[in-house]
Amino acid sequence: MPAPKPGVASLYDVVGIGNALVDVISHADDGFIARHELAKGSMTLVDTDRALYLYQALGTAIEMSGGSAANTVTGVASFGGRAAYIGKVSDDELGRVFGHDMRAVGVQFRPGAAVEDTPTGRCIIVVTPDAERTMNTYLGVSSLLCPPDIDLPTVAAGKVLYMEGYLFDRPHAKAAFRLAAATAHEHHRQVSLTLSDSFCVDRHRDDFRSLVADEVDILFGNSDELMSLYQVNTFDEAVQAVQKDCDLAVITVGPEGCYIVQRDAVLTAPAEDVKEVLDTTGAGDLFAAGFLFGYTRDYPLHHCAKLGAIAAAEVISHVGPRPLVELKSLLP
Amino acid sequence: MPAPKPGVASLYDVVGIGNALVDVISHADDGFIARHELAKGSMTLVDTDRALYLYQALGTAIEMSGGSAANTVTGVASFGGRAAYIGKVSDDELGRVFGHDMRAVGVQFRPGAAVEDTPTGRCIIVVTPDAERTMNTYLGVSSLLCPPDIDLPTVAAGKVLYMEGYLFDRPHAKAAFRLAAATAHEHHRQVSLTLSDSFCVDRHRDDFRSLVADEVDILFGNSDELMSLYQVNTFDEAVQAVQKDCDLAVITVGPEGCYIVQRDAVLTAPAEDVKEVLDTTGAGDLFAAGFLFGYTRDYPLHHCAKLGAIAAAEVISHVGPRPLVELKSLLP
Repeated sequence: MPAPKPGVASLYDVVGIGNALVDVISHADDGFIARHELAKGSMTLVDTDRALYLYQALGTAIEMSGGSAANTVTGVASFGGRAAYIGKVSDDELGRVFGHDMRAVGVQFRPGAAVEDTPTGRCIIVVTPDAERTMNTYLGVSSLLCPPDIDLPTVAAGKVLYMEGYLFDRPHAKAAFRLAAATAHEHHRQVSLTLSDSFCVDRHRDDFRSLVADEVDILFGNSDELMSLYQVNTFDEAVQAVQKDCDLAVITVGPEGCYIVQRDAVLTAPAEDVKEVLDTTGAGDLFAAGFLFGYTRDYPLHHCAKLGAIAAAEVISHVGPRPLVELKSLLP
Repeated sequence: MPAPKPGVASLYDVVGIGNALVDVISHADDGFIARHELAKGSMTLVDTDRALYLYQALGTAIEMSGGSAANTVTGVASFGGRAAYIGKVSDDELGRVFGHDMRAVGVQFRPGAAVEDTPTGRCIIVVTPDAERTMNTYLGVSSLLCPPDIDLPTVAAGKVLYMEGYLFDRPHAKAAFRLAAATAHEHHRQVSLTLSDSFCVDRHRDDFRSLVADEVDILFGNSDELMSLYQVNTFDEAVQAVQKDCDLAVITVGPEGCYIVQRDAVLTAPAEDVKEVLDTTGAGDLFAAGFLFGYTRDYPLHHCAKLGAIAAAEVISHVGPRPLVELKSLLP
């Protein structure tokens, strides 16, 4: 890939591409998880019938815009960064809610072409008393993202392209992903990927492996996802493997913080203290937001990780996947 | 009015009627309130254009079912009571969200007849850093509630009918209100009313005065609303006035608790301690829920007030107008 030219003018710090989803968040106990055979802590794709069934079974819910990469770009904007987002919603109420919440924090939203009769996607999130979230996603129109939906000038104008692994669950979205990555590199931009979920890594391991080796400049993920990617038993082996593939990998290890893995060095950085963890939804997304906000300002990597930790701490201390305060106000 | 016969069998403890709304909740500072000329702490009715304008101006929002009497009946159900609700939504996404959140806690929901091309109503709520909420309501289809929408067998089957003063903002809803009250009394049920808002009392003072004197068995409200109802300058005068009109009035005075006003006696009861008040939306609604849950079980009045205080404390300690935990689990 061409080396990034830091001098190229940019309109955006981060351009995100992902599945545009509205989260439907509810609290339930582990009995609910067991009764409905949910994969605790993971993201499962569901069809319309299963989504309706689960919604029916669910208690009182809160609706809030979500989507992994979408959460990240709103976090970047909330820090005061310039962000854009490409993802598909319908012309329905949840689509309007999603668009509102993007624009409300100043993210440039490119929703792609309209599709009739397919609703905006939603993610049914069950938060258990241990603050873990279990996600069941009905992709709806978000999964119809295809190459023509990628606004190429937007991709070309962002310092870092940020894409979620979840895009790989649909072939058209995967093609859109590859087009976006190629476009970014043509314009001397950097390409980043979040592995999203260890089951998602399982579903697409070969694709991810070649992508990380050939196309990805910055890889985000957690330790489980990285070990799954390389099918190794220890975190150390996974770190050594990713060092061969990728210039920079930022791997979170929950409350222990993160590892910043470069070709020739590994740094660690701590997480922030949190009084009470209420809902871990969005932790990884917001960590990436803080990291990329710092990275696109050329801050030292340990400082980028500090900003990631601050954003993650904010989002896990309340219900919902996006910050409730302006992250700018939390800058150290 | 006929005296209630406690021996009549009932299907429901409380039957609520009100404007069925989905809340759109956002945080903003007092500058936002001033800039958009909002009536802080009150409920203002807005038309479509103003609703769109405010939504545009609003930051990241959370959607959550609301509506004053609707919040109350979900509170009754959350305590383990039997509740029903009559209120109008459309066959749109927000209408489905509203219906889901009713059924999810076990409330029997009677949505009335469908109306095309009028969306489900919504209430734009701005929460300021002092935890005060400022509400701007676009009534949508909820305001089309009319007498044929009142499911009379449901009203006849509830120990206490509970209605919100906000219904008086539309003539058809007012007629529906009167029909429901007459039906309840014919079946020896009790009729309760919440005054809703001091501006609402201002708009409909004469109606409310005759209603309280002629039709209402249990009146809910806060001290401002009661003083506005009787146009007096002191709370004592208001208490004396309502004693002449009404068998039982339960008047909240914020963190100081409440007054339980009977014809010949006035009791006081304290509020519950709250670690941090985050959002006062729903405080009065949930107070009424706890009180009515106890009242329909013939608990002593001070114990009813205690349950009201417990429910109010739960709802003001988080964002959103409905309990996030089963209130049953908080029973003393």
